[in-house]
Amino acid sequence: MAIEIISSKWAVVTLFALTDGPVRHGELAELIGGVSRKVLTQTLRRLQDNGLVERRAYAEAPPRVEYGLTELGRTLEEPIRKLTEWARTNGEAVVAFHEAAEDASDR
Amino acid sequence: MAIEIISSKWAVVTLFALTDGPVRHGELAELIGGVSRKVLTQTLRRLQDNGLVERRAYAEAPPRVEYGLTELGRTLEEPIRKLTEWARTNGEAVVAFHEAAEDASDR
Repeated sequence: MAIEIISSKWAVVTLFALTDGPVRHGELAELIGGVSRKVLTQTLRRLQDNGLVERRAYAEAPPRVEYGLTELGRTLEEPIRKLTEWARTNGEAVVAFHEAAEDASDR
Repeated sequence: MAIEIISSKWAVVTLFALTDGPVRHGELAELIGGVSRKVLTQTLRRLQDNGLVERRAYAEAPPRVEYGLTELGRTLEEPIRKLTEWARTNGEAVVAFHEAAEDASDR
C-alpha cells in the first residue's frame, strides 16, 4: 500500500525538510532535529528506494553530496504540508487529550 | 510530535474509513480489509487515547457499539484525504520504482 511509504514519522519530516531544496546529510539532521545519523541514513535510503528522494554527488574537493526531492517526491509536497499544518494547529490538543487519558488510566 | 499520531498505516486507513460516519468494529474491519481484529482494536484504542475517535455504546438488545470521529478527529479529514488521493495517483509509480530498485540490488 502506497500509504505505508509515508507511514513513518521520519519519512514525513525528512520529506518536509527537503521541500526548500536539496541539502547535505549534516544540514538535514540539523533541520530535522532529534534524529540520529543512522536513522536519517536509513530513512533516506528507503525514500531513495521508493523514488521520492535522490542523492546527488558533486565531483568537487572536498566531494559534496546532497539529497533532494525527485519529481515524484515533489508530488508529496502538498499532502505533507497539509499534515504539517494539521500537526501545528491541532498537535497540542491531541497531546493534552492523550495526557488526560493517561492520568485517568493511572487512577 | 503530533505527526506520530498518524505515522501508522492502520491509523491513516482507519481514520479514512470513518470519514463517512460511525461504524461497528466488524464493518470497519471489512471496510479496511487486510487488518486483523486485534490490530484494529489496538489502532482504535490508540486513536481514542489521542482524542481522534470515540466509542459509542447504545443500550439496545443486542447492544450496539460504534466508532466515529470526534470533532478533533474530523480536523484530520482533509489532510488524510490529500494523502489518500496522493497514494491513489502516485502509488503505482512508487511501487514500480521500488521493484526496479530491488531488482537492481539483486543483480
